[in-house]
Amino acid sequence: MNGAESLINSLADAGVELCFANPGTSEMQLVAAIDQQPRMRAVLCLYEGVVSGAADGYGRMAGKPALTLLHLGPGFANASSNLHNARRAHSPILNMIGDHATYHLQYDAPLTADIQGFASPVSAWIGVSSSADDLAATGLEGWARSQEYPGKVCSFIAPANHAWEESQATPSIPTLAESPKASDELITQATEALSNAGGKAIMLGGRALREDALVQAGRIAEATGARIITETFYARHERGEGRVAVERLPYFGEQAQDFLKELENIVFIGTKPPVSFFAYPEKPSWLSPEGANLVQLADVNTDALDALTRLADELGCPAEPTLFQERNTFELEQGPANALELGKIMANRMPEGTIVSDEGATNGLFVYAMTPGAAKHDWLTLTGGSIGQGLPLSIGAALACPDRKVIALQADGSAMYTVQALWTMARENLDITVLLLNNSSYAILNIELQRVGIDNPGPTALSLLDLSNPTIQWTEIATGMGIKAQKVTQVQELDDAFAAAMAERGPRLIEIIL
Amino acid sequence: MNGAESLINSLADAGVELCFANPGTSEMQLVAAIDQQPRMRAVLCLYEGVVSGAADGYGRMAGKPALTLLHLGPGFANASSNLHNARRAHSPILNMIGDHATYHLQYDAPLTADIQGFASPVSAWIGVSSSADDLAATGLEGWARSQEYPGKVCSFIAPANHAWEESQATPSIPTLAESPKASDELITQATEALSNAGGKAIMLGGRALREDALVQAGRIAEATGARIITETFYARHERGEGRVAVERLPYFGEQAQDFLKELENIVFIGTKPPVSFFAYPEKPSWLSPEGANLVQLADVNTDALDALTRLADELGCPAEPTLFQERNTFELEQGPANALELGKIMANRMPEGTIVSDEGATNGLFVYAMTPGAAKHDWLTLTGGSIGQGLPLSIGAALACPDRKVIALQADGSAMYTVQALWTMARENLDITVLLLNNSSYAILNIELQRVGIDNPGPTALSLLDLSNPTIQWTEIATGMGIKAQKVTQVQELDDAFAAAMAERGPRLIEIIL
Repeated sequence: MNGAESLINSLADAGVELCFANPGTSEMQLVAAIDQQPRMRAVLCLYEGVVSGAADGYGRMAGKPALTLLHLGPGFANASSNLHNARRAHSPILNMIGDHATYHLQYDAPLTADIQGFASPVSAWIGVSSSADDLAATGLEGWARSQEYPGKVCSFIAPANHAWEESQATPSIPTLAESPKASDELITQATEALSNAGGKAIMLGGRALREDALVQAGRIAEATGARIITETFYARHERGEGRVAVERLPYFGEQAQDFLKELENIVFIGTKPPVSFFAYPEKPSWLSPEGANLVQLADVNTDALDALTRLADELGCPAEPTLFQERNTFELEQGPANALELGKIMANRMPEGTIVSDEGATNGLFVYAMTPGAAKHDWLTLTGGSIGQGLPLSIGAALACPDRKVIALQADGSAMYTVQALWTMARENLDITVLLLNNSSYAILNIELQRVGIDNPGPTALSLLDLSNPTIQWTEIATGMGIKAQKVTQVQELDDAFAAAMAERGPRLIEIIL
Repeated sequence: MNGAESLINSLADAGVELCFANPGTSEMQLVAAIDQQPRMRAVLCLYEGVVSGAADGYGRMAGKPALTLLHLGPGFANASSNLHNARRAHSPILNMIGDHATYHLQYDAPLTADIQGFASPVSAWIGVSSSADDLAATGLEGWARSQEYPGKVCSFIAPANHAWEESQATPSIPTLAESPKASDELITQATEALSNAGGKAIMLGGRALREDALVQAGRIAEATGARIITETFYARHERGEGRVAVERLPYFGEQAQDFLKELENIVFIGTKPPVSFFAYPEKPSWLSPEGANLVQLADVNTDALDALTRLADELGCPAEPTLFQERNTFELEQGPANALELGKIMANRMPEGTIVSDEGATNGLFVYAMTPGAAKHDWLTLTGGSIGQGLPLSIGAALACPDRKVIALQADGSAMYTVQALWTMARENLDITVLLLNNSSYAILNIELQRVGIDNPGPTALSLLDLSNPTIQWTEIATGMGIKAQKVTQVQELDDAFAAAMAERGPRLIEIIL
């Protein structure tokens, strides 16, 4: 047995089932070890941004880490912007980064780089194997750390010689840490806040947006009159018919401030007081009402279900809420396709259990607004603001939940960032429907241009926000990567195409001209 | 005037003419300032790996930095693997990284990240603006540092409020540093080494591969009998008819060792003693013959032309060499297209002044071998080993040299990494011919798999090196991005397609099925 086999076998023993990979020469022994380990599935991605985004999607849906296989510092660098998103999503991910043999580093060969430097900004923990015998233990430590509540991006470096040298190590699988719990004092503070008169809310993020936690939030809301508000961008929200309904904080700061302005008491669980996504001249960064009583009951790293349950009990709420989201369906308004009608179509037709990877940007907000009463589904958003997450995320979700329909609600500008994801959808025959929202624009930036005070942009400025000239033909690109694709311009065409996609299995792309 | 205008105007005054950009909200004032500065051209790229690779190509060919415009830490992260290559190429690049307003950082909004952490592994210098008044001076310092011989990747952070706040700063343009010169003592050592009997060579890299420096190398070679050997992967080699011919060090370590084995004295100019690209079990990392006399006359940061000229003078060489590369043309062998015949076609048909961006991987080596006697041209290689450089590099070269033909000799696996580059070629109507070498494989890895000692790879291992299933249809992808594309399978078809591409202007892609 070599170090690579010791590592991969140990991780398989720990329950790691999936490796998203783009290997190079320095990782060939790791590839061979995965090849020999039938409990580990390897999925090739044609760019490392797809690897990391897929691992994020898997982590959000499986609740445990996938392994990534990355080629030295530059391979990690390509993965790192989607790891930034994953870090913000608190997804468990275990990055396995190949490196030169330790004795080769002194020569500064072309691919030599500061891997720890690359990894630091996005990793909660970085391990470096010290020997072939240590490689498996290093990987297992990363595996355990990646599952510290609610999930962490962890990375370890696997030098090539530690992979190929002999090892007899069979380290024991570490015990996973318990989730940290909110203090009794904070439960008391939150109880007092929600017992006050005046406008009140519980604001939820992270794990507080799962169905079980939302039931507890529903108890509290019904008993106290508190609103239930979610952070704008979260890793995963279980919503739809039969679940406790929530309000979502608006994206734009002014709207968010207005949305919150009546509140005198806010309790935060799984999130923190909201701030504007960007700073703007003459606009506030801090969004909570001045003088409001803000209680941070549980930050994102504190057990949200436990905190909500104890809070509801302390408040003396009834054991179950009575109000749940009803099913909503819509009549379509025929005409050119648009985000509102798309939202209606999705509300009407998404099967129960659908997972939506929402990188729809400006249009995604409309679709979200129309779908609270769809059949039960999961909604995953762009947590870190680094575009190019949506398509890879849907890959990871589809692999974590092979029996569920996955929809990638995808803006065109962001789709181009990790367009290579389409190929992996085809190769793995994943049940993903890509709704490619083609408005030939970085549309959000046209709004932001005005919001930062630029009222008369010239042709150069506008050209930097424009994706026409040439117009991207998404059906051609999808076909080139092996995905069945169709272009629609009208609501009826869209409804028909969406219905067909929901009725069949396998990857496809519907390009929606907006 | 705001800080952004002060900055962009100062950089334009310093001679910066081009900005490769993918902006976001925090860079809108920078966009507006570029919009108002007619001496600054902005080129939109649909992924930051294209931005940085293009800046590398521009730096190699223009000999001065382009500006990049990157959206906070994650935008920089996407650029960083091609910046790794640019760092290895010693290209001058000035990265302008937008950031949140300084007062907004405390809130840890979603896109907040450790920008300096991201930038450190690939930047020779990092500047952080301290105020609106300081922004232009920070940019200018980066501009000057980026041109420290022979070129450096420099990065500076532009907080959004420094861009939008008022500034009257008009800092003076810094004086550029002189190139460091080799010491007289090293000239003497090198002279002695090349005066010895026995096998001898001068080994060249970096700026030593430009025509003027090669003339000096030719003087030395003819007078001393020294071989002229180049490093395997260099930023830019001026080669072809009428230039001094060189030998290129083989890629594989064993071959390189064999290639060097007769040498007793080696003088290095613009490079250092060669090492194997990767480490392999039971194979050497260090490639120079044991006991050979190695003289590091000029490292890559020391003036190569000066060192070669002084060495030739000290050796008493005649003022000019007499031997120059002759023109070679070839008869084609008809049949299925292959790299050897492609090399012949390029040797026959490349017009003088062609620039070749070689990311052809395994096939690129054959093409290189067939083209020393082509018309005068520049050959640019993958310097840092991080794939995805070739297409962006060709964009930068085409913008630096709009009157020259550019050929992107491009392997399929690498092409997919930064496939978004095709769109920018179309938008800017660049005179680039992409020769897409489609072997549906990471072919080099199949070789490397054996070289690291894995003799019986199983289906999982092989699948991770395989790009078929589905087969990528490059003509579809290119068409989708607005590029004229054609697929060829036969030598005659390839010859005709290449001839047509050389006869016309504008971007096109020829997919060559190998």
